[in-house]
Amino acid sequence: MIIEKNGFIHHVFFWLKNPERKEDAFQLIEGLKKLSAAPTIKDFHIGIPAATNREVIDNSYAVSWLLLFKNKEDQDIYQTDPMHLKFIEECSHLWNKVIVYDTVDVNVE
Amino acid sequence: MIIEKNGFIHHVFFWLKNPERKEDAFQLIEGLKKLSAAPTIKDFHIGIPAATNREVIDNSYAVSWLLLFKNKEDQDIYQTDPMHLKFIEECSHLWNKVIVYDTVDVNVE
Repeated sequence: MIIEKNGFIHHVFFWLKNPERKEDAFQLIEGLKKLSAAPTIKDFHIGIPAATNREVIDNSYAVSWLLLFKNKEDQDIYQTDPMHLKFIEECSHLWNKVIVYDTVDVNVE
Repeated sequence: MIIEKNGFIHHVFFWLKNPERKEDAFQLIEGLKKLSAAPTIKDFHIGIPAATNREVIDNSYAVSWLLLFKNKEDQDIYQTDPMHLKFIEECSHLWNKVIVYDTVDVNVE
């Protein structure tokens, strides 16, 4: 398993204010690459929608950001990490919608 | 990186028709556990919402199902795998909403 026992999955989907501006997606992706060095992040993936299209699929987002943390405590630390706050300061003007799914193991809690 | 180059992330969120029925969530989770043996699945995680709550967080789903595939082709095979079709036949009466996010590496495509 990629997720260790008590692991914490944080999956963020970004919709850009100006989706036609390729440079905005580029800037967001560069920001996420920098942010990926935040110390409590165990593993990460920066993605874009795949070329799939069925009724249940939401492929309207521009960029996805999948993070694995050791546990909820590490995710809480990340939320107020100066690197995270700097990313928000530098990049939040780029998006107009964000959805976050936080997930823990089904046997936890 | 958990996702190898050209990897494919398939993240599914289920909302149950009867979220108050614990046995329905249990049945869905058991179905997903069986389904996890489908041959093209590289790695998987069955989850429930974490105990986080901010404006951007959607914690209204009941169960999440994160799959990693080697590539899009393997995901396509999974869609019509008899195990997958059997899971849908046995469990689809349990949910009333599903959202799927398919994601590929930002450098792919």
